[in-house]
Amino acid sequence: MCPSIEETPANGAANGNGESYTAVETRVQPAPHHKSSPYQPVGDFLSNIGRFKIIESTLREGEQFANAYFDLEAKIKIAKALDEFGVDYIELTSPAASEQSRRDCEAICKLGLKAKILTHVRCNMEDAKIAVQTGVDGLDVVIGTSSYLREHSHGKDMTYIKNAALEASLPYTDKVIEYVKSQGKEIRFSSEDSFRSDLVDLLSLYSAVDKVGVNRVGIADTVGCASPRQVYDLVRTLRGVVSCDIETHFHNDSGCAIANAYCALEAGATHIDTSVLGIGERNGITPLGGLMARMIVADRDYVMGKYNIKKLKEIEELVAEMVEVNIPFNNYITGFCAFTHKAGIHAKAILNNPSTYEIISPADFGMSRYVHFASRLTGWNAIKSRADQLGYNMTDAQYKEVTAQIKIMADVKKITLDDTDAIISAYHHNLVNNENKPLLDGLSKEEQEKMKKAEEKLGGVKEKRQLDAEAAADAPATKKR
Amino acid sequence: MCPSIEETPANGAANGNGESYTAVETRVQPAPHHKSSPYQPVGDFLSNIGRFKIIESTLREGEQFANAYFDLEAKIKIAKALDEFGVDYIELTSPAASEQSRRDCEAICKLGLKAKILTHVRCNMEDAKIAVQTGVDGLDVVIGTSSYLREHSHGKDMTYIKNAALEASLPYTDKVIEYVKSQGKEIRFSSEDSFRSDLVDLLSLYSAVDKVGVNRVGIADTVGCASPRQVYDLVRTLRGVVSCDIETHFHNDSGCAIANAYCALEAGATHIDTSVLGIGERNGITPLGGLMARMIVADRDYVMGKYNIKKLKEIEELVAEMVEVNIPFNNYITGFCAFTHKAGIHAKAILNNPSTYEIISPADFGMSRYVHFASRLTGWNAIKSRADQLGYNMTDAQYKEVTAQIKIMADVKKITLDDTDAIISAYHHNLVNNENKPLLDGLSKEEQEKMKKAEEKLGGVKEKRQLDAEAAADAPATKKR
Repeated sequence: MCPSIEETPANGAANGNGESYTAVETRVQPAPHHKSSPYQPVGDFLSNIGRFKIIESTLREGEQFANAYFDLEAKIKIAKALDEFGVDYIELTSPAASEQSRRDCEAICKLGLKAKILTHVRCNMEDAKIAVQTGVDGLDVVIGTSSYLREHSHGKDMTYIKNAALEASLPYTDKVIEYVKSQGKEIRFSSEDSFRSDLVDLLSLYSAVDKVGVNRVGIADTVGCASPRQVYDLVRTLRGVVSCDIETHFHNDSGCAIANAYCALEAGATHIDTSVLGIGERNGITPLGGLMARMIVADRDYVMGKYNIKKLKEIEELVAEMVEVNIPFNNYITGFCAFTHKAGIHAKAILNNPSTYEIISPADFGMSRYVHFASRLTGWNAIKSRADQLGYNMTDAQYKEVTAQIKIMADVKKITLDDTDAIISAYHHNLVNNENKPLLDGLSKEEQEKMKKAEEKLGGVKEKRQLDAEAAADAPATKKR
Repeated sequence: MCPSIEETPANGAANGNGESYTAVETRVQPAPHHKSSPYQPVGDFLSNIGRFKIIESTLREGEQFANAYFDLEAKIKIAKALDEFGVDYIELTSPAASEQSRRDCEAICKLGLKAKILTHVRCNMEDAKIAVQTGVDGLDVVIGTSSYLREHSHGKDMTYIKNAALEASLPYTDKVIEYVKSQGKEIRFSSEDSFRSDLVDLLSLYSAVDKVGVNRVGIADTVGCASPRQVYDLVRTLRGVVSCDIETHFHNDSGCAIANAYCALEAGATHIDTSVLGIGERNGITPLGGLMARMIVADRDYVMGKYNIKKLKEIEELVAEMVEVNIPFNNYITGFCAFTHKAGIHAKAILNNPSTYEIISPADFGMSRYVHFASRLTGWNAIKSRADQLGYNMTDAQYKEVTAQIKIMADVKKITLDDTDAIISAYHHNLVNNENKPLLDGLSKEEQEKMKKAEEKLGGVKEKRQLDAEAAADAPATKKR
């Protein structure tokens, strides 16, 4: 089988080898109704927002990150963590890269993970044979940058590409594809730098390999130049040309890696490449956590039902430690400020209903919401407002004191909104019942000691409370409702 | 003038008060031809990719970042740095927020910066008066979350909104708008949470305030839920409804803040809100640096001609220090790995022409490209390949030695690709001429000392070189070409 341009299958035609592909179903079934969020896109025939798959490439793209040196032990830890998270595929560095890479690949295949194991190889028979023998479930074949696309596709030698390159190279490509398939392995065929390649060349190539029977074709924004609407247009066009699945790979140099993945799914792509914290060449690719942030907003049911997203923080901390980086302050979901609200600006609204200002629920990821009470713009007014919502009526002096207590506590441990509520409640209880129960339960011994010291520093708080309470006899501490 | 729904101006109609707005021109002139990059979007009548303006909100949105406590001195430093960068507008926290905010606002207005100074105020006359008196160039008026959009626009009380709220509130809005205009100030009118608001309500409101004569309307993705194609659709629709400029504000909770800004410009938005490092509520908004990364890929001439992008790193470091965060490892342009390539994987291609793998030139930002030579996957083969490209022919032992020298140097200072070339060249020169000149010029005294120590640690390198050189007499060090 040696397809030429003339033999390009018609749009939507089944490929000729009798196999059926996921993508065929993908294109026939309308997108399921999204009920979990009112911010859904309108239902769309092409969209795979509600049934995407993740090809997790921390152990391939991530290995190309400046600081990444994973030994086998590290690779196994990462692979197991990703498997528990529930990623669909784990992609590994080519076993042809080095003897160590080959051994690592074999070892990971033997772990018996639920995730399918892929490896990323050049399109030649030697690499393909080495890869097949490692026991992987599939091969992600990439057509070398220099082989024809990059060197020839910038308008220099169109005739060469169409007539010579395609016809001369494809029989060999065919061989690789047929060999891999004959061994019962999945095969993906991808170009590099797809968004700077000639569109006609790209479509011709993909159409030809689709006809030969690859499971997936891959679109790669190798340099990170693509914009969301470009991605939508290219994937949508490709969706009409091939019957197989479509995998996409986006670098983040110009800040669109998450958005591009989303638009690719809207246009009918089926698989998204990710890495933990986005690590990869330069500033990396679509991050696993960032993709989860995007997709949970679009289809919470699918994301919650399929992925164990409470593991996200643990996986990110594991990888961050291995590659010796800090988790960025503004990281999606797990960054220190992702769910931190600064009371004072919208204090009342935030305290009233923080979720009004959140599109993602921290609890879904096993995280907590923080309201930042240390702001000089806020102080005790925010606490007064919160106490009022909770139905406690105290004097201004008492609000100021409980605020001081909350600030002390915030120095001892990171306090959540629930902690704040508990402190206000316990403080009020002590006032009404003239008791002295701890303001917050469950403090460790260390935290209790810190607390004591901080209280001593503050000094005389209790005496002052007594005086204030007496002075404010006309505004007693009561529970309003 | 009290517009009601019936008086909504027809699409594209000039507003009734005889003023002309930038946006009118925006919509009439076709986008200029982009010549600097082959990766441009196709020319588009609506697109403002090649003429956007920046409203820099580090001193407003950024003040709402968890760690931000800017005193006047800090605010002045930031404002001056942003002005040198060349942002079009600097937005400040409302002078109605506190007496200090008001004084800071006045002080910054008196600096005589080239950038126009805006302040962000609620839509009421008291706030407007305070703001006008500070001497700002314009007011960014935001319609309170609770006033009608949020509380009422979720389908609960459509009649109220259309008949009561619009008619009852707009005369008051009119008054604010007319007052601000009568004082010779610019005025923007924005909703909050625009992407979760009823489209008809939004368009009605914007159409009405456009007719009253605001300079800009604002679209805000307050919770960070919008996707790029939603943004494109909303802005494009709005572009047909109002004649004034369109400002956009995107939070980054689901990773689309840069992409959304780009799609907004494609759809005819004129102004983008940014902050340094994206700091703001939760994980922030479109970052200034990230927007530059995106826009320089799309229209390098415009970005280079208008903004002093070599100042980016300095501004980011200034703000990062003030708010006590580390610049994320994967930050756009200035992150440590943004221009770092890991030799070994694509070693040859990268060494041959690093820009093949870069869509952004580090030199444009006054940055350098780094090739990471410490990878266990690479080592001396990468150096051999590079030396070969430079035309030097040495023995394997010599390649290994110069690689060791480069690694030593890399411990002493961060070495660029140019440094690597210089070291290889000097090493070869010493071999051929039997000299001992320094491998890299311009080292500080401190670096020279470190270098000495590191060399001593390595031990016996020079003796070994002598032996190797003798042994390898059959493969002499020569310049091939």
